[in-house]
Amino acid sequence: MDEFVIRGPVINPPTPTQAEQVTRVVHVGPDGTIAACPAADTPAARTLLAQTRQRGVPVHDLGPAQLLMPGFADLHVHAPQWPQMGRALDLPLRAWLEQRTFPLEARFADPAFAAPVYEELVRTLLANGTTTAVFFATIHEESSLLLARTCLRLGLRAHVGLVAMDDPDLCPENYRNPGVEQALDATRRFIHAVRALPGNAAGLVRPMVTPRFIPACTDALLRGLGELAAHEDCLIQTHCSESDWEHDYVRQRMGVNDTVALDRLGLLRRGTVLAHSCFMTARDMALVQARGAAIAHCPLSNAYFAGAVLPLRAAWQAGMHVGLGTDISGGYSPSIAVNAAMAVTAARMLDTGTNPDLPAEKRGRPGARLGFTEALWLATRGGTAALGCNAGQLVAGQAFDAILIDRAAPGSNIMPSGHDTDAQDLVQQILCNIGRPNIRTVWVAGRRVHESCP
Amino acid sequence: MDEFVIRGPVINPPTPTQAEQVTRVVHVGPDGTIAACPAADTPAARTLLAQTRQRGVPVHDLGPAQLLMPGFADLHVHAPQWPQMGRALDLPLRAWLEQRTFPLEARFADPAFAAPVYEELVRTLLANGTTTAVFFATIHEESSLLLARTCLRLGLRAHVGLVAMDDPDLCPENYRNPGVEQALDATRRFIHAVRALPGNAAGLVRPMVTPRFIPACTDALLRGLGELAAHEDCLIQTHCSESDWEHDYVRQRMGVNDTVALDRLGLLRRGTVLAHSCFMTARDMALVQARGAAIAHCPLSNAYFAGAVLPLRAAWQAGMHVGLGTDISGGYSPSIAVNAAMAVTAARMLDTGTNPDLPAEKRGRPGARLGFTEALWLATRGGTAALGCNAGQLVAGQAFDAILIDRAAPGSNIMPSGHDTDAQDLVQQILCNIGRPNIRTVWVAGRRVHESCP
Ligand SMILES: [Zn+2]
Ligand SMILES: [Zn+2]
Repeated sequence: MDEFVIRGPVINPPTPTQAEQVTRVVHVGPDGTIAACPAADTPAARTLLAQTRQRGVPVHDLGPAQLLMPGFADLHVHAPQWPQMGRALDLPLRAWLEQRTFPLEARFADPAFAAPVYEELVRTLLANGTTTAVFFATIHEESSLLLARTCLRLGLRAHVGLVAMDDPDLCPENYRNPGVEQALDATRRFIHAVRALPGNAAGLVRPMVTPRFIPACTDALLRGLGELAAHEDCLIQTHCSESDWEHDYVRQRMGVNDTVALDRLGLLRRGTVLAHSCFMTARDMALVQARGAAIAHCPLSNAYFAGAVLPLRAAWQAGMHVGLGTDISGGYSPSIAVNAAMAVTAARMLDTGTNPDLPAEKRGRPGARLGFTEALWLATRGGTAALGCNAGQLVAGQAFDAILIDRAAPGSNIMPSGHDTDAQDLVQQILCNIGRPNIRTVWVAGRRVHESCP
Repeated sequence: MDEFVIRGPVINPPTPTQAEQVTRVVHVGPDGTIAACPAADTPAARTLLAQTRQRGVPVHDLGPAQLLMPGFADLHVHAPQWPQMGRALDLPLRAWLEQRTFPLEARFADPAFAAPVYEELVRTLLANGTTTAVFFATIHEESSLLLARTCLRLGLRAHVGLVAMDDPDLCPENYRNPGVEQALDATRRFIHAVRALPGNAAGLVRPMVTPRFIPACTDALLRGLGELAAHEDCLIQTHCSESDWEHDYVRQRMGVNDTVALDRLGLLRRGTVLAHSCFMTARDMALVQARGAAIAHCPLSNAYFAGAVLPLRAAWQAGMHVGLGTDISGGYSPSIAVNAAMAVTAARMLDTGTNPDLPAEKRGRPGARLGFTEALWLATRGGTAALGCNAGQLVAGQAFDAILIDRAAPGSNIMPSGHDTDAQDLVQQILCNIGRPNIRTVWVAGRRVHESCP
């Protein structure tokens, strides 16, 4: 890869509660990482510019309404549900699974059905600024490997999970693993196959051990997957304490909450991604924090299927990793910006409550608010840190996973004004109002993976 | 205007709970209304096509992933707050008004400041598919008239209100009417001036009597505006029972809820648009229904400033008119589609509640859910019917206010599939996922007012 330099305003979240806008000289090295990014008009920047110019490294200056920011991390995407996005949200979770979702996912037994869906999904995520994605695929090895290959070819940093689900009580006959051994063998083969993909030496695409959720898996499968993950040193993802139904189901079957059950089964490890987790108790959160696992917060999806809002501030106060997930197609948007803004909106609705018939002091759960700056962290470094990825901030040493935002692009819903210097206002505007026309260029590991039509 | 014919799938809400997709032949007459729109492949359609072809009327066939739908109605926009959209949402209502909003609105004393803002706002609303908008401008006659002229020139169907606000307790010295008589005279002049605008004979742009809200106005001004509206036969808009603070303030000052106070002051009339109205009681709703007034439901804004969700189903059950409002910049999106989807999401969060620490049966307010088909009605005919506009449905006799949606446009976040025939799924997908790239062409009263870049 050829190195390059970009000069212009950079939005960055140094911590969960800070946002800064600094004009920088960003030098991306031949390995796709940020070699240096000093503030412009400093001696370091001048030296950098002089040296790179001497070596003929191209320097790109950003336009007046343009800026760089870290790419988004999407910790929870059901890749096969892409054709269903923005549909069937009127159904309750169980009916939605049985009538629409399982039949759709079953079709991915056919790689020819899967190929255009996965191609289109990965292109769409990149076009929306997602540079790291964590996927549930299906139980089908061939098409799930095709998803991994598609990510690698199109340049999306991805964790891909071959789904495991074997419980005949919940899973339909035409869409479940026929037995524990088959499921474990398939997962083991999948892990090896993804790691061995040609061109994947740097590990841009990684496998994930993926029990769908406790209700869809037998104890034997769950335990086997825990052992496999430890043996293969592979990250894990699953759903956790999503809805009243799911949470109560697990308590009845296991006698404990999801987190405790997952921990006993060896599935709660550093880097485990737990989708939703709305109904975690303080004790659950302490356990998850102790294991170094993370929550994928999916605020849009939760409005439709969880029946509650994750108390995200409580999760942070417990010291947990938290990132955002679109949860396509439980969530109706492929954009992490949309989900970040929704995280702020949902936190408000948890904080104030929603029922006007109750007096204000009994309506909500004060202290639950979230700021847009905090949402930026969730959308970027919160997610990559959960995965242990060296990306998510535009700082020296991290991978150059970045978005070039053009606030004045044709088709923009933003009115830029000359005096936009307040980083907090800019962050809010970006999360609330960027659409695809504003996402001009996207890079992953220094590779340009998306360019919007002019 | 030249007449034309469009042939293709048409999405329409015949009632609040129905959505239909029918391939039609839509004949738009020289007056900009729909002359006929029979289903294709009927004798009526064949006759229509033969007759119009004979007269040389152009026939446009829609592409495979294209469809027509009614334009959106936005019942609540603060035009001068457009530069502030997606900013300052971290502040509570009172601080937001005093620190950010009033100082910004005060700048519209200068028409040179107003001109580019209003031009850009009107273009943006049209580009997002809004064909009818109801504006709060500012207290400044010249720039408010400029807004009316801008709507007329760019072809947006609009109701424009010169804001009246005279209470020195709430309104800053540099941004309030100096007295009741001045405010009433200004409003009267404004009504006459808008009605007399060259090119406005058909009344595309109409004035509105606009007391900001009770806390910003003296009783004398409110009463005077009620009399003026009756005398001039002019529609009225104001804010109503928005937040705990505002609702309690009015109860303390007036001894009654907003609706009763507004009614006594002569401000609750057929076509009065009441923004927000989250805290209306059943008695309030019955009164509003009896007067033929309407609610502008602003679900995004309400999450930030109201602290509760409007029980929209209760409002419908009371027989009230309800439409949607973006409430720029209390709401962070100029898109009525975004607000329609948010209305469904917010209704879910009212229905289920938000606090996971409460048992499910105590968390929410069951029965509050809203379907996407109902949201389509709110976004289109719900709003135009509230205003008494003959638009909002694609049926013969109504104005041709329409959007050409291209689900397969470059930059689309929608994956169209060949078998999309279910109208409910299509409606959901449109409201959840269209962005500016999907909004190909927009017409108001038969005039093409927006065309997206290819
Ligand atoms: Zn999920
Ligand atoms: Zn308002």
